[in-house]
Amino acid sequence: ILTKKIVVLPGDGIGPEVCEEAIKVLEAVAERFGHRFNFEKHLMGACAIDATGSPLPQETLEACYYADAVLLGAIGDPKYDNDPAAKVRPEQGLLQLRKSLGLYANIRPVTAYDVLLDHSPLKNERIAGADMLILRELTGGIYFGEKGRTAEEAYDHCTYNQEEITRIAHLAFQAAGNRRNKLTLVDKANVLETSRLWREVVQGIAAKYPSVAVDYLFVDNAAMQLILNPRQFDVMLTENMFGDILSDEASVIAGSLGLLPSASVGNIVSLFEPIHGSYPQAKGKGIANPIAAILSGAMLLEHFGLQEEADAVKEAVQNALRNEVLTPELNTVSPFTTEQVGSFIAYCV
Amino acid sequence: ILTKKIVVLPGDGIGPEVCEEAIKVLEAVAERFGHRFNFEKHLMGACAIDATGSPLPQETLEACYYADAVLLGAIGDPKYDNDPAAKVRPEQGLLQLRKSLGLYANIRPVTAYDVLLDHSPLKNERIAGADMLILRELTGGIYFGEKGRTAEEAYDHCTYNQEEITRIAHLAFQAAGNRRNKLTLVDKANVLETSRLWREVVQGIAAKYPSVAVDYLFVDNAAMQLILNPRQFDVMLTENMFGDILSDEASVIAGSLGLLPSASVGNIVSLFEPIHGSYPQAKGKGIANPIAAILSGAMLLEHFGLQEEADAVKEAVQNALRNEVLTPELNTVSPFTTEQVGSFIAYCV
Ligand SMILES: CC(C)[C@H](C(=O)O)[C@@H](O)C(=O)O
Ligand SMILES: CC(C)[C@H](C(=O)O)[C@@H](O)C(=O)O
Repeated sequence: ILTKKIVVLPGDGIGPEVCEEAIKVLEAVAERFGHRFNFEKHLMGACAIDATGSPLPQETLEACYYADAVLLGAIGDPKYDNDPAAKVRPEQGLLQLRKSLGLYANIRPVTAYDVLLDHSPLKNERIAGADMLILRELTGGIYFGEKGRTAEEAYDHCTYNQEEITRIAHLAFQAAGNRRNKLTLVDKANVLETSRLWREVVQGIAAKYPSVAVDYLFVDNAAMQLILNPRQFDVMLTENMFGDILSDEASVIAGSLGLLPSASVGNIVSLFEPIHGSYPQAKGKGIANPIAAILSGAMLLEHFGLQEEADAVKEAVQNALRNEVLTPELNTVSPFTTEQVGSFIAYCV
Repeated sequence: ILTKKIVVLPGDGIGPEVCEEAIKVLEAVAERFGHRFNFEKHLMGACAIDATGSPLPQETLEACYYADAVLLGAIGDPKYDNDPAAKVRPEQGLLQLRKSLGLYANIRPVTAYDVLLDHSPLKNERIAGADMLILRELTGGIYFGEKGRTAEEAYDHCTYNQEEITRIAHLAFQAAGNRRNKLTLVDKANVLETSRLWREVVQGIAAKYPSVAVDYLFVDNAAMQLILNPRQFDVMLTENMFGDILSDEASVIAGSLGLLPSASVGNIVSLFEPIHGSYPQAKGKGIANPIAAILSGAMLLEHFGLQEEADAVKEAVQNALRNEVLTPELNTVSPFTTEQVGSFIAYCV
């Protein structure tokens, strides 16, 4: 029986709606298994800018420091995207949160669900059985290097050091050891010095995990291989920007971005969020798929060591998939609302 | 009736084999239309390192300066890839050549050929009719910024200035004007300063091309949209690294990397090359698809203003596709060799 404090950052767009359903499911888990989860909501993203002027108010950050886990909806608002001169952006809040909490590893499982093969843009026989874990470095690289502008020129610096690569590489080898013992490092070592450092460090660590087979792919080739032959991947390890691109791309294997959860782990507290964005066009329409947020909740339970509870959530999601209790992007014939999908899954837990 | 000097850089792996077939087809064109093409081969890449110590010998570079066009096979050898400490690499030759010749725009057309839909990993109905032009900036960004290493740390700097973006943006708007009047800028303007500069410059230039509709996608979303709905794209404009990743990814639409040509244009001389790599495992086996190199030859003809000649080559390639005169990756039942495919296409010209 556990008592845990979960800070919820609903964020923008569909973020609040999908968080509600994840909370509903976690509450059903607490009830069934006799735990106690205290949810505490805080502002982050565009809503935080509107309310406080800052995308990550100090009190939000402090609440996260003292939480047992953080559940995030989504952040972002298009009103900032096409204004290159905007002084403050929702995304800064997320990046600052990742950095402040030291969330150095973003873990994104991608699975081709049998019942959803028809929904993928990929031919069913290419993706059937595909099941991979993408590990994206999350607090280094070009996202966090020095950046700046003059009237004429702009720059973004990408840096990595041994330590940043080492810690996530160990995670990746361990994850591969618990899965199918295959690790693929994705880099651009034929062009970038940072990639050569990645390759060097990973080659060094590989010796400590003799049971894991390692291969190395250039990022351009990896972007192609993900689609040509997704079953070849078990654990894919890569740096921040490449991971951003490849994990969104890999979502096509699952059939909908609305299915994919993620966990961001670090030393202080871990954060769980769907990989989809704030999808502002869908806000308030009841069409957002809550499954990515709900499965992020399952990853949160695993993080608490509650494997049986996590499995109950995953099984309930499978149930929704099998019975087509799904939002319109996956059930065009008789779609369910965000709220109905959440309630069904909570009920099945 | 034209007389032209074409410098050929066969390069490594399958580069020489596919170049032979492209030359064969260009010679057939010269014969049929009464032109005179003089081909002159020079070393570049791993073969140049082996012979001279440098991946781009001075005499190769000079020959390119004085050529009317350059035809490149492919470069690269795995013996350099897994050695982070290698002092000299084949890729440096290619990057130095691009920079020295000022090849700032890499143009990659991607088409879903009707007769090849079954070969694509994507569902036929998703890709049927897809036809886009990817414009990749080729002499700026993180490829060419300052880079370096200490024992502990590595860095790669990404920079762009107004001028670098402006010149390729004009090319992109003109290309869109000659096609379906749609331009998509791909960037990561929610995170990178360089991307914000791209967006700012493109927004400014857009006003001069009122008939072209412009939209803006983040690179992670673009990597997904390319697979979800490739028909939405007409001209895609992007920076160097994103273009590298997205154009290889887009190759899945065509059904084989072995079909995709490219042109790299600049102010001095233009260069034509298949987008595939040196594919060393296939070297000498007669299984390399020469069509990408042959279609690169067609782009070279267009560059000379020889539209009828270029169309004859494209039509001959269609003929090979329709009759399945194709290498094993596209014709598993009764495959033809590299040389046979080239001869058939040359014959059809
Ligand atoms: C919103 C944005 C800053 C973010 C990123 O690029 O990391 C998002 O795309 C993600 O993948 O979580
Ligand atoms: C070989 C390599 C340096 C090159 C690049 O990254 O530009 C290649 O991938 C390409 O796309 O032409």
